[in-house]
Amino acid sequence: MTTPAHHYARANAESFINQLCDLLRIPSISTQTHHAADVQRAAEWLIADMRRIGLTAELHQAEGFLPLVYGEWLGAGEDAPTVLIYSHYDVQPAVKSDGWDTEPFEPTRIDGKIYARGALDSKIHTIAHLKALESALATNSLPVNVKLLFEGEEESASTHIVQFVHANADKLKSDVIVISDGSMPDQDQPVLVYGLRGLTQLEVTVTGPHRDLHSGHYGGTVHNPLQALIEILGKLHDEQGHVTVDGFYDDVRPISAEERATLAEIGAWTAREWQIVANAPQVWGEPEFALHERIGARPTLEINGMAGGFYEQGFKTVIPHKAWAKISCRLVPDQDGTVIARRVIDALQKHTPPTVQITIEHDPANDSSGVLLDYQSESMQAVIRAYELGWGRKPLLNREGGSVPVVASIQQALTGELVLMPFGYKGGGAHSTNEFIYESMFQRGIATVLHFYQILADG
Amino acid sequence: MTTPAHHYARANAESFINQLCDLLRIPSISTQTHHAADVQRAAEWLIADMRRIGLTAELHQAEGFLPLVYGEWLGAGEDAPTVLIYSHYDVQPAVKSDGWDTEPFEPTRIDGKIYARGALDSKIHTIAHLKALESALATNSLPVNVKLLFEGEEESASTHIVQFVHANADKLKSDVIVISDGSMPDQDQPVLVYGLRGLTQLEVTVTGPHRDLHSGHYGGTVHNPLQALIEILGKLHDEQGHVTVDGFYDDVRPISAEERATLAEIGAWTAREWQIVANAPQVWGEPEFALHERIGARPTLEINGMAGGFYEQGFKTVIPHKAWAKISCRLVPDQDGTVIARRVIDALQKHTPPTVQITIEHDPANDSSGVLLDYQSESMQAVIRAYELGWGRKPLLNREGGSVPVVASIQQALTGELVLMPFGYKGGGAHSTNEFIYESMFQRGIATVLHFYQILADG
Repeated sequence: MTTPAHHYARANAESFINQLCDLLRIPSISTQTHHAADVQRAAEWLIADMRRIGLTAELHQAEGFLPLVYGEWLGAGEDAPTVLIYSHYDVQPAVKSDGWDTEPFEPTRIDGKIYARGALDSKIHTIAHLKALESALATNSLPVNVKLLFEGEEESASTHIVQFVHANADKLKSDVIVISDGSMPDQDQPVLVYGLRGLTQLEVTVTGPHRDLHSGHYGGTVHNPLQALIEILGKLHDEQGHVTVDGFYDDVRPISAEERATLAEIGAWTAREWQIVANAPQVWGEPEFALHERIGARPTLEINGMAGGFYEQGFKTVIPHKAWAKISCRLVPDQDGTVIARRVIDALQKHTPPTVQITIEHDPANDSSGVLLDYQSESMQAVIRAYELGWGRKPLLNREGGSVPVVASIQQALTGELVLMPFGYKGGGAHSTNEFIYESMFQRGIATVLHFYQILADG
Repeated sequence: MTTPAHHYARANAESFINQLCDLLRIPSISTQTHHAADVQRAAEWLIADMRRIGLTAELHQAEGFLPLVYGEWLGAGEDAPTVLIYSHYDVQPAVKSDGWDTEPFEPTRIDGKIYARGALDSKIHTIAHLKALESALATNSLPVNVKLLFEGEEESASTHIVQFVHANADKLKSDVIVISDGSMPDQDQPVLVYGLRGLTQLEVTVTGPHRDLHSGHYGGTVHNPLQALIEILGKLHDEQGHVTVDGFYDDVRPISAEERATLAEIGAWTAREWQIVANAPQVWGEPEFALHERIGARPTLEINGMAGGFYEQGFKTVIPHKAWAKISCRLVPDQDGTVIARRVIDALQKHTPPTVQITIEHDPANDSSGVLLDYQSESMQAVIRAYELGWGRKPLLNREGGSVPVVASIQQALTGELVLMPFGYKGGGAHSTNEFIYESMFQRGIATVLHFYQILADG
């Protein structure tokens, strides 16, 4: 089932990679305000490309938010299915000194891989969809109507897009909603995701003395804020890795026997990939759940960052004035982010001794819920078939541990069956150093999208 | 008992302060290798001033070490007592963005105070002794022989000076050894110190996965190194603030009833000063010891710095590859730094779970022991009388919580009765932001040194 569009994609493979690299050169970091102009530049790059390949395109800019890019092509006619595709073009922070071997914003091609911040998370998806569309449109063979919605603040909050999809439900109306993000544990074995975890984030600051103190002059009489913070945070887990926050697991939907069996197929892949990518001295976590269940079907409480005192080269015998930590919880259905955040805040306050003060910041606008899709749905079955054609191998099913905050919001706001289409490699260092993608997965992704259009049109 | 030297000191008070400010402008930070040239410059400034006021002076420079400054004046003759004075001219790191209101290396005079890094710790002492000598020599009234030994790496290691005093015991021979460093809890009430704590320092690094990981993709299956580190460090204290390291208190010399009574006089001062300077929500620490005993007579284990993951502005949902902490123990007689470090290392290793790896760095060369001087000695009684004249008030006695690493080494290597002469204000932010001294204490310090010479000479 190779079409003219597939031929076009293969003939233009090198050009498509160069275009991906052009977008990767733009440091569209949404979590750091001084990169706002770069996010803007990336949005304008996408608008220009959409117009070039034949879509109508608009940049949606709301006061205080980073731009949303919207494009559409409705030339397949009213009887043809309409597909809404979501991706994001913003990226996590990165500087070479974090431990990168190459400049994070100078894409580097080595042995069939492309190294760059945002390559995997998630510009591979943005560009794969654009180039699939280009291939179909250039060969007059696009059998479905397509709406593209590319977000510029997925890594920071996804606040604006939530408002946008609620306010533009008619404009975004579609039969199928494709959320294209995420990754697969192997470049040759496709794995399709029907579950995602949600997220809630907290910033915790413990203050003790009203200024930094000499640890000789006061040591032994002041509750060191670092000491207090580790004592407080240390009470949030038990020795086996369970979260001990009151009520934390109350709303977790149990895994059914049928689902457990479906998921079991992925177990060996997850374990092998863990050994390669995580490669910690030992597996850790809730012992009564399999590794892949801990990742996809169980919530967590993680310290993503912590600091206080003098942590540079050298020594400074100080009792710091304050210590701080950034905490996040990965959530699963039916946990509510804001409820869980409240329970964590209560626990932190309960564990704070009178010798220090604690302040906790939490913005409910950034909370996202976990998602579970029906893997028996018609659209999901179309995705499974498209991957089988694109990759030449039947995909496995999985629940993913990451969060795509917008998914739950889109599911609430819009009609249309929701499916997920990931093209990244899970070992590709999303949110880490030396992030990369396989060029082969980028190309198979484009081919898969073209198959998906055809299967949908064929009904 | 006002002498021509005292008159000279008063007449030149403004000039003396300007000279102190000149030295304070040199960022002689010994713990950061890129400041080595500044330490050198400060040493040369001191050499030049010693020669100007009539001392012979030498700069002792050993391969790989920062310079030692030595000066002497032996014109009082063989029958007169000889005084060896130790101080240090290096300082802790500081940059304005740490939270200073003024530039740390641009001394700023406000309301009788001088704000600058190193003002209190310890350039007030270096310059007070130099200017006392200048005042006595300029008025031909120095009744004792004086040897000055100014160190340039007290804040980093004091490695070189230990070798130097052992190798130059004859050259440094004296009747009295004055260690001039430290501070007093009130500008008008002198407090003399007869005890100091020692110090041992450790750097701890916990590694887990072999790279930073996405907390969604792996959260729940990897023992987060920050989580592991807080669990490990959390086991080093009990809920009351006692150190739980096996054998930690074994060699602590108990406080006698007589000493406890002598020390009790300082209690109210310590408590008041704690409220002003530390000002934490509550006092913390071993409940069976008074506040001033916890500071002076009890050892501690302190986390001076800790970091891991993403702790800047924004959020990064990462499981970090590693987390690290800088730990130090304040020691009291008869604890041995290297023995204690070994016990802490054993405890850290014992508490490390198999899910992570730990590495611990400790350099025994940086260990220092606590010191207890005999406050009944002839020299100590001379110091007490000199302060009474210089300050117009009888000094109280105290055990100090800080460390002057060289004191124990000097005590071992040299003969002569050891005494301590502090001129700093304890609330003056040593090792912290907005470090300052009172100009009045600098001037009283100079006057006190002149009285001390006279009392020694009068026998």
